[in-house]
Amino acid sequence: MGGEVGVRVGTGFVGPVWSTKRVASDRDSRACRKPRMMAHGGEKKHRTPLLDGVKLPRDLKKFSVSELHQLATELRWDTIQSVASTGGHLGSSLGVVELTVALHYVFDTPQDKIIWDVSHQCYPHKILTGRRDQMHTLRKREGLSGFTKRDESKYDPFGAGHSSTSISAALGMAVANDLDKKKTHNIAVIGDGAITGGMAYEAMNSAGYLRNRMLVILNDNGQVSLPTGHNSAGGVRPSGALSDYTARLLSSSRFLSVRGMAKSMSTQLLPGGLQELAKQVDTFTRGMINHGGTLFEELGFYYIGPVDGHNIESLVRVLENIKNLDGDKPIFLHVKTEKGRGYSFAESAFDKYHGVAKFDVESGKQQKSSSNTPAYTSVFSDALIRMAEHDCKVVGITAAMPGGTGMGKFGDRYPERMFDVGIAEQHAVTFAAGLACEGYKPYCAIYSTFLQRGYDQLVHDVALQKLPVRFVLDRAGLVGNDGATHQGAYDLSYLGCIPGLVIMAPSDEVEMKRMLTTMNDIDDQPSVIRFPRGCAYGEEALAETLGYPMNQTDEPGKLPIGKGRILRSTKGKPDKARVCLFSIGTRLVDSVKAAKVLEEQGFSVTVADARYMKPLDTELAGRLATTHDVMITVEEGSIGGFSSHVLHFLTLEGLMDSGKLKFRSMVIPDVYIEHATQTEQLEQAGLNSSQIAATALKVGAKQGELQTPAEMERIVAM
Amino acid sequence: MGGEVGVRVGTGFVGPVWSTKRVASDRDSRACRKPRMMAHGGEKKHRTPLLDGVKLPRDLKKFSVSELHQLATELRWDTIQSVASTGGHLGSSLGVVELTVALHYVFDTPQDKIIWDVSHQCYPHKILTGRRDQMHTLRKREGLSGFTKRDESKYDPFGAGHSSTSISAALGMAVANDLDKKKTHNIAVIGDGAITGGMAYEAMNSAGYLRNRMLVILNDNGQVSLPTGHNSAGGVRPSGALSDYTARLLSSSRFLSVRGMAKSMSTQLLPGGLQELAKQVDTFTRGMINHGGTLFEELGFYYIGPVDGHNIESLVRVLENIKNLDGDKPIFLHVKTEKGRGYSFAESAFDKYHGVAKFDVESGKQQKSSSNTPAYTSVFSDALIRMAEHDCKVVGITAAMPGGTGMGKFGDRYPERMFDVGIAEQHAVTFAAGLACEGYKPYCAIYSTFLQRGYDQLVHDVALQKLPVRFVLDRAGLVGNDGATHQGAYDLSYLGCIPGLVIMAPSDEVEMKRMLTTMNDIDDQPSVIRFPRGCAYGEEALAETLGYPMNQTDEPGKLPIGKGRILRSTKGKPDKARVCLFSIGTRLVDSVKAAKVLEEQGFSVTVADARYMKPLDTELAGRLATTHDVMITVEEGSIGGFSSHVLHFLTLEGLMDSGKLKFRSMVIPDVYIEHATQTEQLEQAGLNSSQIAATALKVGAKQGELQTPAEMERIVAM
Repeated sequence: MGGEVGVRVGTGFVGPVWSTKRVASDRDSRACRKPRMMAHGGEKKHRTPLLDGVKLPRDLKKFSVSELHQLATELRWDTIQSVASTGGHLGSSLGVVELTVALHYVFDTPQDKIIWDVSHQCYPHKILTGRRDQMHTLRKREGLSGFTKRDESKYDPFGAGHSSTSISAALGMAVANDLDKKKTHNIAVIGDGAITGGMAYEAMNSAGYLRNRMLVILNDNGQVSLPTGHNSAGGVRPSGALSDYTARLLSSSRFLSVRGMAKSMSTQLLPGGLQELAKQVDTFTRGMINHGGTLFEELGFYYIGPVDGHNIESLVRVLENIKNLDGDKPIFLHVKTEKGRGYSFAESAFDKYHGVAKFDVESGKQQKSSSNTPAYTSVFSDALIRMAEHDCKVVGITAAMPGGTGMGKFGDRYPERMFDVGIAEQHAVTFAAGLACEGYKPYCAIYSTFLQRGYDQLVHDVALQKLPVRFVLDRAGLVGNDGATHQGAYDLSYLGCIPGLVIMAPSDEVEMKRMLTTMNDIDDQPSVIRFPRGCAYGEEALAETLGYPMNQTDEPGKLPIGKGRILRSTKGKPDKARVCLFSIGTRLVDSVKAAKVLEEQGFSVTVADARYMKPLDTELAGRLATTHDVMITVEEGSIGGFSSHVLHFLTLEGLMDSGKLKFRSMVIPDVYIEHATQTEQLEQAGLNSSQIAATALKVGAKQGELQTPAEMERIVAM
Repeated sequence: MGGEVGVRVGTGFVGPVWSTKRVASDRDSRACRKPRMMAHGGEKKHRTPLLDGVKLPRDLKKFSVSELHQLATELRWDTIQSVASTGGHLGSSLGVVELTVALHYVFDTPQDKIIWDVSHQCYPHKILTGRRDQMHTLRKREGLSGFTKRDESKYDPFGAGHSSTSISAALGMAVANDLDKKKTHNIAVIGDGAITGGMAYEAMNSAGYLRNRMLVILNDNGQVSLPTGHNSAGGVRPSGALSDYTARLLSSSRFLSVRGMAKSMSTQLLPGGLQELAKQVDTFTRGMINHGGTLFEELGFYYIGPVDGHNIESLVRVLENIKNLDGDKPIFLHVKTEKGRGYSFAESAFDKYHGVAKFDVESGKQQKSSSNTPAYTSVFSDALIRMAEHDCKVVGITAAMPGGTGMGKFGDRYPERMFDVGIAEQHAVTFAAGLACEGYKPYCAIYSTFLQRGYDQLVHDVALQKLPVRFVLDRAGLVGNDGATHQGAYDLSYLGCIPGLVIMAPSDEVEMKRMLTTMNDIDDQPSVIRFPRGCAYGEEALAETLGYPMNQTDEPGKLPIGKGRILRSTKGKPDKARVCLFSIGTRLVDSVKAAKVLEEQGFSVTVADARYMKPLDTELAGRLATTHDVMITVEEGSIGGFSSHVLHFLTLEGLMDSGKLKFRSMVIPDVYIEHATQTEQLEQAGLNSSQIAATALKVGAKQGELQTPAEMERIVAM
């Protein structure tokens, strides 16, 4: 923290806390406003006098380098306060406060472009780029996105949410700028987790070859073991003075030009073999000083670092040197940071407050979920552990999401049977295929949206070879406040077209357990289970809506493959149309609720649950089609999925030829659904119980049966 | 070639050619059968006495190492002869003849597993593993696959076709074997092209961390510039003796154990900082000897090499050393080979005979395609060059397929505007996104099947951000003899569900030009054009079937977005049903042919071409639906694509409610269609003109109208 010593105060905020009194210098309006420490326990006011003057990044330029300390402190405070009230990705953002300030101070955004990889860490950037007063809307409907977003600001040159894309994007921009002979800077900031993704390697390989002007900053916060020859997870921080020194030394233009000269001499004057030797000695020398980086050098980058990412002077100095370089290689700057930096509760938390709910700043306590029901993720991990107890062939794979997928819990119990392969979905899938070849039962747990990264591998390595990999797709359907980048909307469509898959979608946690039990015995082909984000219904709700028995303690039984079920059918002869709500997955409970509304209106309603998208229960589909006047398929997925498979079957079999059946499909509409709550998103998608009922009413009603829209609204609102 | 000197003879075959007389030693039945050279121009009989005795790999074990030379020569000859009669991937296979022999000689397959990456290079392996007498069926219907295939042989532990999967698969197997405490060897053989794929990096990163017993062999045939600090494309071959020496030295157990001891000493005896230093010096020392490999060391492998991949003694020695190692790291063996090795025409060819048609062994001449019409690929590259002449923002991107995609031709003309990013589809797509951000018009040319590798990037980086990247999908639909791994069957389904894409499929080359012109002006959203493998129809055929005018010289005009067209409609009042054949892409010509058959049978037929899968021409679809008795959609794609979008629209709009329309969709069926000719595959898929006519006849006929299947067959065969 340079000249000032950070103190841990009761708020958990690590750093200077200052009084409201602004100490300004008469001589220089840009003089450092020195914060004064307040005693622990006093009334802590966190004024932000410098930050208040920053509307846009250009306002930073008026500060001296030494003032940037205070600004960073204010920015950190503002970030904590902001996330405390909204929830979000705190830890990553706290780690890059100084880096964010330094980048905007040195470079000229938005002409120069900063591309935040994944962009979990973009909150300080948002605060500095004109969005401070909207931070309270973060991740809420119509509010700021939790990620960078091109639509949101010209300071967000590239949107993100999925990992490891930044270098490719920055390289594309760098190439374009070079073609246009524009001297702009394109900067990718990528974490040590994200850099394990294969596309980051592809991009570096390409960048090293193309040699355009670009800067990759590795934000190394020790989240993973990096392949740089040192384990950055070990928590050994660079030994301040030395690393500062080497960074300064290595990034100074003068040093580079001496090196450049030496290099050109060596290649001109030495015979072939010795040239090679000289080059290697040169590489080695820097490697020795740098404690790493050889890998990045090999990929064609000029490696600089590591630099202390919380020492703002040294960051500014290094970045200024880089800015003025006119090298013939892309630059790789290795910055060491600390996730959760400056907020004691985050620093000491296991996950460094990676993603948090709303929390109390003073105590660090996060708001607990109000739900008493288990999350689907836990239902999965508990089931997996139970199956693994009896089946030594069960193994688990996650691509850097042990917490999010529940695989961590499994790994705690069976460490030798759980594999976290890093942010590497492509590898995860084919690695699972290899395990399956040898008779293992790999459970490959990947979010629906991230399986898009392993799509080719699923097709080519798993499905085509009929290998019994079990795909466990959490966060399928609408995902809430992560928004459009994370919607698990497409899986039923992109998987449904692949021959030989078994695809299941449970309507609730009871079904999910049954499906997992079923899946464990599918040994001759791959299988998929897709389930939603969030909490399951709980016993009571299921007893009420679906009529499940309470207090069931039996082990969940296996389901027959490719067989759906009928949940309820109206008894007796109907007055009005016979409606069938044919649902898959999460939309079942809402379909049952809709059915109750419809029955009260005199319709005869059957609610069926397909359970399997593939193989489709064609016997059931056919029977439903021939015994109802209206069939409505309901799914939390896009066009091309379940409804398309049902329609394909019905038309092929001529079951739609007679004109006796009115068919409607309810799917996620063909637009990107932005961040909001899951409930709001379902409504936006037109898939909640009222909307299901309304669709059925509209289709099932005879001419003149529904008088007014108002009446219809009254009915479905019941 | 060790003791024997290879000679180039008239056949183009480089290596010894021997007489039929077998020289056997009395002392040892395994004695070397020394081939005798025959004079150039004599009758060249290529007997294969050693190879004839090899039914399975275990039969190799009886040979001495020195006999393996002759065996390799025979195997090379057999491979050339075989591919000459079938066509296939020759160059890669010739490069690994010695490696294949050495691997099967040293290791015990199928218990030990060899995983050939991409598996273009697997022909010698197939010959040695019991499939020699079926090689004449290669890539033919019901014949051997052109790739490794688990169904085909227990010696093929993992199928391939797409690149960069082998390390992940081998690692999965290695982990499984270690869990089972099995001492088997799992070997991935990967080319210097394939190792540029991100998933190879993901897998190495994972393997370096997991430290299981496995071997990765880099088959470095200088196809690309490798990031090992030396440009292997330069054609500088390792300086024989030295590299042999270092390889022997480095791979001997004794050397390793001395190293192991030194390492353990250093970590035990030295203080922290010095330990690190010692480790680095150690790494460096080997780096100096090895001329590379540091990158692979950094990823956690024990690097050995480079080894001359055509020196069978040294290969055997190195592999035996590796086999007996009991290290705690995966091993990385760097083998230098020459693509096309041993066949002069291949060696001197630009593409090293990568993929060849049938050819004449004596002259090296490949059979020319009998078609006089341009390939779709050329139609694309010509159009792209034409557009680039007028539009300086046009840039092209290929992922290591400059020839296959036509991007090479564009690059010859505009080298500074063409980017070959290596086997890196993920990066290719997001790199294109970056270019689009800066106002460029990137044409990202990727085979339909390979875009599966860039799916997430297309969704997350391009479509979600509405970036005008142009995706050019060659080999969409059924691809012929590459078979199931390469079918471009799924694109309409996996792309159709993504909001904001424009998706076009031309029916022929004239339409393709129009669509490319159209695409160039789509600047506010991404667009896709998907077209088939092979040759276009040519002017005359199109004049005849589709009634296009001859000798058109006009520049192709733009098409309105989201508008289809009606090709033909039967005039007058029909006797029988009014049938609409609603086609997209390649199936149009066959639909027109089917229409002619149907008309002759008294049906009134409309043939319409949707042109766009997205946005769908709903006006046209609605009009067709309400004016016909039967609608049949026809597409060279799987379920979930065009037909699903049409049906979704028709049902939502209630256009199927009346029962006046019989709807059928014709899609690629839900199975994997194996290698065969495209014509055979279309028939297997049920999508040729007779099958379209038959479907319409069956649906359109009234009760009793069609007497017998024989009669129907007679009609559609017309």
